[in-house]
Amino acid sequence: VAARKSPPYELYYWPGIQGRGEFVRLALEDAGAPYVDVARTAGGMRKMMAFMRGEGRSLPPFAPPFLKDASLVIAQTANILAYLGPRLNMAPKDEEGRIAAVQVQLTIADLVAEAHDTHHPIAAGFYYEDQKPAAKERSVVFFKERLPKFLTWLEGILERSGGDHLVGRRMTYADLSAFQVVCGLRYAFPNAMDRMAGRLPRLLALHDRVAARKNIAAYLASERRLPFNEHGIFRHYLELDAPAPKRPARSRAKA
Amino acid sequence: VAARKSPPYELYYWPGIQGRGEFVRLALEDAGAPYVDVARTAGGMRKMMAFMRGEGRSLPPFAPPFLKDASLVIAQTANILAYLGPRLNMAPKDEEGRIAAVQVQLTIADLVAEAHDTHHPIAAGFYYEDQKPAAKERSVVFFKERLPKFLTWLEGILERSGGDHLVGRRMTYADLSAFQVVCGLRYAFPNAMDRMAGRLPRLLALHDRVAARKNIAAYLASERRLPFNEHGIFRHYLELDAPAPKRPARSRAKA
Repeated sequence: VAARKSPPYELYYWPGIQGRGEFVRLALEDAGAPYVDVARTAGGMRKMMAFMRGEGRSLPPFAPPFLKDASLVIAQTANILAYLGPRLNMAPKDEEGRIAAVQVQLTIADLVAEAHDTHHPIAAGFYYEDQKPAAKERSVVFFKERLPKFLTWLEGILERSGGDHLVGRRMTYADLSAFQVVCGLRYAFPNAMDRMAGRLPRLLALHDRVAARKNIAAYLASERRLPFNEHGIFRHYLELDAPAPKRPARSRAKA
Repeated sequence: VAARKSPPYELYYWPGIQGRGEFVRLALEDAGAPYVDVARTAGGMRKMMAFMRGEGRSLPPFAPPFLKDASLVIAQTANILAYLGPRLNMAPKDEEGRIAAVQVQLTIADLVAEAHDTHHPIAAGFYYEDQKPAAKERSVVFFKERLPKFLTWLEGILERSGGDHLVGRRMTYADLSAFQVVCGLRYAFPNAMDRMAGRLPRLLALHDRVAARKNIAAYLASERRLPFNEHGIFRHYLELDAPAPKRPARSRAKA
């Protein structure tokens, strides 16, 4: 990526979680673009909250993440990626491809929202512990119906396209986002993902290809990549995961 | 709007509800653009389901609505509107304005998803009757926290911008979408909306201005505008609404 004449991108997101900000981080990291993760710097949270209150701007973000590029402030993850994609050379060049990338990203965003609501079906503002029975009910339906529908949709796209990329013939931010959603789902629901693995060969191979990209691998090994935890979108609660898949006795003995 | 040389737009959406398709319908109707509401025509549902199975296409829509313009097929409501906006002269002309319109649209989409989940907090595929207690819990938090946060965000944008339009100085699809969300919320939660009315003068005035637009008024009076019902996103269940607001004895006697 050529050096930018403008100041570095400023990413604003909650400092303690990967969350929706991670989709933007991955695109910036993969492209080697200069950026500041503002809320993780000294005084950054105060700066972020000022933007949220809309100080001095006509369109305050409803929620993080948002991106500042020179004087422009952009909120909503898919909107940020649609803006960054062409600038980072991480989006298709033709209009049809750009529209398709947004379509995939927005569908992944829907999956992310549903994955969040497995542990917070009643209210994002309540503790998980105060909505456990509803969370369990929602999780069961999520594994049975929604998760397979979303993930086999992504698998189907790869199958039709020849298997390397979700949109077009090059890596785009949609591929990075598919990587991230697989990471998050595996963290939150290892059993459910293990049970589905056989149906997702192309999606899991794409995940591995993204993880092996030079800048992504360096990022994942760095302290910039926050660990998953039980404050974010993807949370690992044993009691919400599907039961462990049944394995042949031999491989069970090994495990 | 000048006559198009290409065939009419084809909108694909579930035939019995306004749902997310309505945001696209309103833009097409306001612009007087030629379109076919395919699933409401003879054989249209079969055609829609064939697209959903991805017959002959590399990127099948995950869900309706989707729009077909000549050979291009676009899914995800905000993505469709970002495409249609400039073509229908219903989007800002500058990049910053176009990005802001998408941002508002995506935030409205988040509100729409949360409004849906008030009656289906556990699973969209279950009957409402089978998730009533959770629905009541979610609705209470929705009125207390989420609904005011979303609607006062829209009100705040209008306040800063001078009050006429959400983005820029002309009517855009973001304004039509704000109209629609007010319609839907008033249908579903008349008491909650009544209680909030005093805090939303600009948003409610925008709603009225949109309703009075020539093409919109004609559309609303036509059979093309489906009535709200208890199959869609905005559903009126008395038991989920907030309590009726307290009024002075005099106006209560009049009502």
